[in-house]
Amino acid sequence: MTPISSLGEFGLIRRLTANIPITNPSTTKGVGDDCAVLNYGGLGQLVTTDMLLEGVHFDLVYTPLKHLGYKAAVVNFSDIYACGGTPRQLLVSIAVDHRISVESLDELYEGLRLACKHYGVDLVGGDTSSSLTGVVLSLTAIGDAPERGAILRSGAMDTDLVCVSGNLGAAYLGLQLLEREKKVFAGNKSNDETAAQPDFSGHEYLLERFLKPEARRDIIEALNKANIRPTSMIDISDGLSSELLHICQESKCGCRIYEERIPIDYQTALCAEEFNLNVSTCALNGGEDYELLFTIPLSDHERIQEIADVRIIGHITRPELGKVLVTRGEAEEVELKAQGWIAN
Amino acid sequence: MTPISSLGEFGLIRRLTANIPITNPSTTKGVGDDCAVLNYGGLGQLVTTDMLLEGVHFDLVYTPLKHLGYKAAVVNFSDIYACGGTPRQLLVSIAVDHRISVESLDELYEGLRLACKHYGVDLVGGDTSSSLTGVVLSLTAIGDAPERGAILRSGAMDTDLVCVSGNLGAAYLGLQLLEREKKVFAGNKSNDETAAQPDFSGHEYLLERFLKPEARRDIIEALNKANIRPTSMIDISDGLSSELLHICQESKCGCRIYEERIPIDYQTALCAEEFNLNVSTCALNGGEDYELLFTIPLSDHERIQEIADVRIIGHITRPELGKVLVTRGEAEEVELKAQGWIAN
Repeated sequence: MTPISSLGEFGLIRRLTANIPITNPSTTKGVGDDCAVLNYGGLGQLVTTDMLLEGVHFDLVYTPLKHLGYKAAVVNFSDIYACGGTPRQLLVSIAVDHRISVESLDELYEGLRLACKHYGVDLVGGDTSSSLTGVVLSLTAIGDAPERGAILRSGAMDTDLVCVSGNLGAAYLGLQLLEREKKVFAGNKSNDETAAQPDFSGHEYLLERFLKPEARRDIIEALNKANIRPTSMIDISDGLSSELLHICQESKCGCRIYEERIPIDYQTALCAEEFNLNVSTCALNGGEDYELLFTIPLSDHERIQEIADVRIIGHITRPELGKVLVTRGEAEEVELKAQGWIAN
Repeated sequence: MTPISSLGEFGLIRRLTANIPITNPSTTKGVGDDCAVLNYGGLGQLVTTDMLLEGVHFDLVYTPLKHLGYKAAVVNFSDIYACGGTPRQLLVSIAVDHRISVESLDELYEGLRLACKHYGVDLVGGDTSSSLTGVVLSLTAIGDAPERGAILRSGAMDTDLVCVSGNLGAAYLGLQLLEREKKVFAGNKSNDETAAQPDFSGHEYLLERFLKPEARRDIIEALNKANIRPTSMIDISDGLSSELLHICQESKCGCRIYEERIPIDYQTALCAEEFNLNVSTCALNGGEDYELLFTIPLSDHERIQEIADVRIIGHITRPELGKVLVTRGEAEEVELKAQGWIAN
């Protein structure tokens, strides 16, 4: 018997979803992008789903349930935006064990409702169940595809510019901070009742990036306004490297990005130093930032520079040139590598 | 803090989903039926989602993974049929722990693919993850609403006939058989290596009803062909009583059904006797049969009798007459009661 870890997440998905036939005219695009694309009578529609498990995707020791609900919804909306669309409906399934009170569930739903309100989405259905151990959430978001069709991972072309919104690595360092304080707190608890409370001062931004991320609706709106249609797009949930490699694989191209151009917030840089981590590694592999990574034609070079909070980090190349990161300083060329989810 | 068990499943759902606003024109009907109803450019669309957890909804000791995949898909399709629609797309999220091999996942997907093929549905997306303990499945099915609009739980009217497809209680007794043999097997294993294998002879039908249920597409097709449009419909996942009470609540009506008219298979009756169970109780509360429960105008009385495998079990009444079961024999009137899911 083959352990799942030997294939990795993406190898496993490829194996399980190989040669799945599409038979209905209402299915435009099946497995393999941020969303499936459907067409029920004229308007393109995007559908995406995500499952979150306690102990794997979140830790209730430091994740308030309201934040968990908010984040779970936003993460799904982000997949809709990553296809250039607008989320409209959300379905939420939830399983909880006996530790969870009605009031805790109220909080979780408060977060879900808040996210729906903020992004203009209707909560239209779901399922509620008990679990033997741990909280499980599964969300499905549905939305409008852009009029000119969903922006997929597969449209990047040679010479396209590679762009990224916001900044990267902050959510990852937020998580490191929470994990560190959790350990300190656990240690204190057993030894000393008067121990110090967790100290996050100066790191509020990093915590917020991890605990309460936002989807980049503003970037989609700005791109539409500027009449820029990305040739490919994806949201950064697993880290920049991993997502860029998805675009290269689906678009059958190479890429060349520059370490010095990767947008990093000042707090992220400081905190990485505190943890003795390479900040570029955090930005390349950290994940959970939910920024948008996209490619645009070279001819949009000037127009993109007028959009706030978007940075050009490199360009698309012919596939035989490989996937290259040009490092800071000596400008060494290294191969881009990804870290995905691996089963235990 | 209020334990969830104090509210019950349906009370909890009502609390969590109270006063959820609908703001998008593409949302026709939100929370509260077998499916949400959407409208993206002309054609009505149905969406439904379900989460299944190991140890709560299934037991891998006696559930082959291929069957689990098949059943999980069919259960979702059944919700689409229960609104009079046709399932077209399926999204599948799955989380597995380290016990599960790649080959086991292949089997699960084989079952999912088989169900999709059998019902003409496209598998269009999903999510794959690890879990700390146990297998979790979450499925979302999408399909066409009928042209005249989704058949909801809320349309039953006084004097309508109450109909049910197929027969009831079989899946519940299939489960009892599996649980019994599991215990016997566990007992044998520790004492005697040459112990007898599980004995299911004569009970194959019951096992199949539990392990490999089918959704009643044929009934929807027969109703369409006979030009009968049910005034309300629901699929029987939690048991006849519970589902009929949903219809009464949503339609603000009463009902009167006759115990002697509840369709029960010969094997179900025999097996109930073997277990010393009241077979009507099994049929009323057993669940997992995935038959259709629906109401039709009295004027369709003759036409419905021409449809094979549909039984009239009673009629809808004014709400003040209550929800009544007329028992066999002495024809005593008792109040219909439901058993839903209650958190531990």
